Amino acid sequence: MHFVEDDGSKKYRTDYNSHGSAGHRKEEFYGKELILADRETVEQEADSILKEADVCDVAFLVVGDPFGATTHSDLVLRAVKLGIPYRVIHNASIMNAVGCCGLQLYNFGETVSIVFWTDAWKPESFFDKIKKNRQNGMHTLCLLDIKVKEQSLENLMKGRKIYEPPRYMSVNQAAEQLLTIIKNRRLQGEEPEITENTICVGLARVGAPDQKIASGTLHQMSTVELGGPLHSMIVTGSMHPLELEMLKLFSVDSCSNSENNAFKRTA
Amino acid sequence: MHFVEDDGSKKYRTDYNSHGSAGHRKEEFYGKELILADRETVEQEADSILKEADVCDVAFLVVGDPFGATTHSDLVLRAVKLGIPYRVIHNASIMNAVGCCGLQLYNFGETVSIVFWTDAWKPESFFDKIKKNRQNGMHTLCLLDIKVKEQSLENLMKGRKIYEPPRYMSVNQAAEQLLTIIKNRRLQGEEPEITENTICVGLARVGAPDQKIASGTLHQMSTVELGGPLHSMIVTGSMHPLELEMLKLFSVDSCSNSENNAFKRTA
Repeated sequence: MHFVEDDGSKKYRTDYNSHGSAGHRKEEFYGKELILADRETVEQEADSILKEADVCDVAFLVVGDPFGATTHSDLVLRAVKLGIPYRVIHNASIMNAVGCCGLQLYNFGETVSIVFWTDAWKPESFFDKIKKNRQNGMHTLCLLDIKVKEQSLENLMKGRKIYEPPRYMSVNQAAEQLLTIIKNRRLQGEEPEITENTICVGLARVGAPDQKIASGTLHQMSTVELGGPLHSMIVTGSMHPLELEMLKLFSVDSCSNSENNAFKRTA
Repeated sequence: MHFVEDDGSKKYRTDYNSHGSAGHRKEEFYGKELILADRETVEQEADSILKEADVCDVAFLVVGDPFGATTHSDLVLRAVKLGIPYRVIHNASIMNAVGCCGLQLYNFGETVSIVFWTDAWKPESFFDKIKKNRQNGMHTLCLLDIKVKEQSLENLMKGRKIYEPPRYMSVNQAAEQLLTIIKNRRLQGEEPEITENTICVGLARVGAPDQKIASGTLHQMSTVELGGPLHSMIVTGSMHPLELEMLKLFSVDSCSNSENNAFKRTA
């Protein structure tokens, strides 16, 4: 059992935690057919993937680092229980590639996930984690929600395997949700640690040739144009002068000397 | 200017934040001579590296992710100021590869560095950061000190460029320092959050074919045999059952059902 790119004779590919658009190019690269394994396959048919491992090498390709998802730990545990040797080949992931915006990896606190709000469910728990990080002077990497192969409530109830189109949260949407929470907190009499003017970084398609990075206030993040998925956002904590200088390279403010420059106002 | 593996016609290689032993294999792989750039070269002669970028492509290879070190942000800033386009190719780094031990990356707090103590300088600040992470239920990745091209005080004072042999902190040494701090704190009347029995993970040569992972108590980490550098250590916070199950795969306890098993005692 191999995790990620190797010469196994049977290859599974997954992209349920990301936005995999490179399937065809990968098949060309490996010169072999890849079997697309969606979350259902990996979670519910893990043993059938592993069953083949006694007759041939099985490789399991993922986007990002293989241990970003608990699902893959589960696969390792199953392999070990079945006496199947495994090997991991690591890869860059958003967890370290965010360093490209200039914020130091050592200055990040706990990573949070920002989920899509629904009419009935508007959790704010991620906000409190970001607040805590910022109180400790730490930056927060916010991973933004992905909805792939989701069923509508109606289709789920009726047991129809009809899936909604995939949705990827944008930096704009994440910023909007944070701004709403800030308003809510103010109504509750709290003056939150994080405001419209807190310096944030929006990142899109990190590592791809068309990656985009934009730094500015949280308010600016709600309208910044970053293009297609995947997006991530960082809420900064305390900044070292070198970090600040790097962030200025990606400032959304056209005029970096203006009095309205986000970095002058709030840094 | 390229960061990391590309087809630039001039290639610099650095390993001052790691333990680069693959220089020759790399030259074979790229079919080109690599110029070894030590910390001095990169920090003091950065502009001479960049100067060549107008006549040829310059590639700069690093171990781990390029933005693990502030030195590389500085190089980017210099390139931008000189109008030199740059491109980053990301790579796995210990910051995400630690996931191979089974602890979830999302459950890590701030990363700390444990430095070599000297007779005169025994800082304990990293201990307080680990404590804070653990109080928040988070794991702590401890990066262990590296001393490469260090001069003795005598040679430094006399201006002699004679360097001490490189030193890499082992998990044993890091654990010993933490155990000493715990003793100190007890003498001061504090009952520290982290004790001899706190579950830790020792990692050696992560990603290499001979990588080693060992989980057990902090006390066990002070004697565990992990072989040559580089080492890292994790002090765990609260553990999810799946994380615990993964850690058991790497338990130093020979008899995992014994009453003395670290995971039974303190998990």
